[in-house]
Amino acid sequence: MMLTAVGPEVERSANTAEGTRIVLVVEYTGTRYHGFQLQAEAPTVQGELEKALWELTREKTRVACASRTDSGVHASGQVVSFKTASAHPPSTFITGLSFYLPRDIAVREAHRVRNSFSVRRSAISRQYHYYILNRKTRSPLWNDFACCVSGELDTEAMNQACQALIGKHDFISFTSRLGKDIKSTVRNVYRAEVRRAGELVTFTMVANAFLPHQVRNTVGALIQVGLGRMKSQDFYSIMGAKQPGLAGPSAPACGLYLIQVNYPRAFEEEIV
Amino acid sequence: MMLTAVGPEVERSANTAEGTRIVLVVEYTGTRYHGFQLQAEAPTVQGELEKALWELTREKTRVACASRTDSGVHASGQVVSFKTASAHPPSTFITGLSFYLPRDIAVREAHRVRNSFSVRRSAISRQYHYYILNRKTRSPLWNDFACCVSGELDTEAMNQACQALIGKHDFISFTSRLGKDIKSTVRNVYRAEVRRAGELVTFTMVANAFLPHQVRNTVGALIQVGLGRMKSQDFYSIMGAKQPGLAGPSAPACGLYLIQVNYPRAFEEEIV
Repeated sequence: MMLTAVGPEVERSANTAEGTRIVLVVEYTGTRYHGFQLQAEAPTVQGELEKALWELTREKTRVACASRTDSGVHASGQVVSFKTASAHPPSTFITGLSFYLPRDIAVREAHRVRNSFSVRRSAISRQYHYYILNRKTRSPLWNDFACCVSGELDTEAMNQACQALIGKHDFISFTSRLGKDIKSTVRNVYRAEVRRAGELVTFTMVANAFLPHQVRNTVGALIQVGLGRMKSQDFYSIMGAKQPGLAGPSAPACGLYLIQVNYPRAFEEEIV
Repeated sequence: MMLTAVGPEVERSANTAEGTRIVLVVEYTGTRYHGFQLQAEAPTVQGELEKALWELTREKTRVACASRTDSGVHASGQVVSFKTASAHPPSTFITGLSFYLPRDIAVREAHRVRNSFSVRRSAISRQYHYYILNRKTRSPLWNDFACCVSGELDTEAMNQACQALIGKHDFISFTSRLGKDIKSTVRNVYRAEVRRAGELVTFTMVANAFLPHQVRNTVGALIQVGLGRMKSQDFYSIMGAKQPGLAGPSAPACGLYLIQVNYPRAFEEEIV
């Protein structure tokens, strides 16, 4: 691994619009982090990536992500990108960054893409998983990695209810954080399903994009359906009411995983 | 939950041979512990169980286990037992102990059994799993929960080689710790198999009992087979050589799980 000394020349090139755009596929355990997005006083995934990039390239780089994850949320396939003036081949960013990153963050893939490529805007969909451990006693092996529900869940009913999410709908009832940056609360859901494998219940959701806390609020409402406290009809009513924050209670962050971000083409084809 | 005040009466009853024998099925993440067995200066699973029992019953109790796990080894189905003079119904030991135990240890089941029942001697077999994550980059989500092998593993070859373990054999080559308490190195293996599910490779082994480090040394040798560095024939030779510590290198503790301990009868039938 080659480390360039810090010098005015390197600094200058990092501050120009020149350089190469690199895309990384990143995995992390979110437990220790205050989410993906950079914060001045708290550890974040973005902060760790930028620190490791500085160690490797001696460039001050801004890292953008495809889908912001909250505090405690995990990712096996987050996609990030940054610009670099360094001449490292993409593979160096896998081995080099994984060396400097803490053990709860690792780089799985690295690709060089055209400079205009945006991990956020170019993405066509995001896939999230939510893990529920459905058993009477708490599970030390799933601490921080699933939400434990002790009452028996009717996963058939949950799966049936969540079919209503599929399609283009206003999901405002599934978020309570309505910032100015959210121009529309309409999202396009391509897939929603609940599957059981023994004690482990997995909720899968694929959509063009997600509102803040959307998956966790959806899971919160689906758990009510699974416990028989709410009927499918009530779930549809929540959706139809279009009242911010109506769905919930929000399921804990530890069960949520950003699995994959999908693009129209393979990264290899995004060079020109 | 009822807490008895510490007093001479309680102390006396705890020190007599009187009382009830309780069996617990326990789950734990072994990462923070120096194994199951009590140590004066280091945190152990036994130590935590005895502390929680003291909190719940105000009795100084010795906890015995069915299968000792090493530092960093996990369990979803460890079986332990102790004697108590308390009149708590078994279910109180599930909720009560789980309240006092740290979050990386939990009680899944509690049963009252006859006083002569021994979790170790009455057990007819133990089942262990070893998880290998077979992929090029390290995995933050499996930190502490699987061993990562980057070279592609031929799991067919591994599964074929490990069939030789099945039956009654001298497994001295798979251990290097030969204490005076080990009278024989012959064990009866009922099941041994390697299965792949995507990147996750699971080695399952069921035997009447295990020698120290036996599963980890077996996995170490099987990984050599999977990487093509050793042929099935070499694996059989190691077994046949009967040379202490010949198999290995020992696979890391974090991938090992005590899944289940089997008894001839259900605990419910062990009352009289």
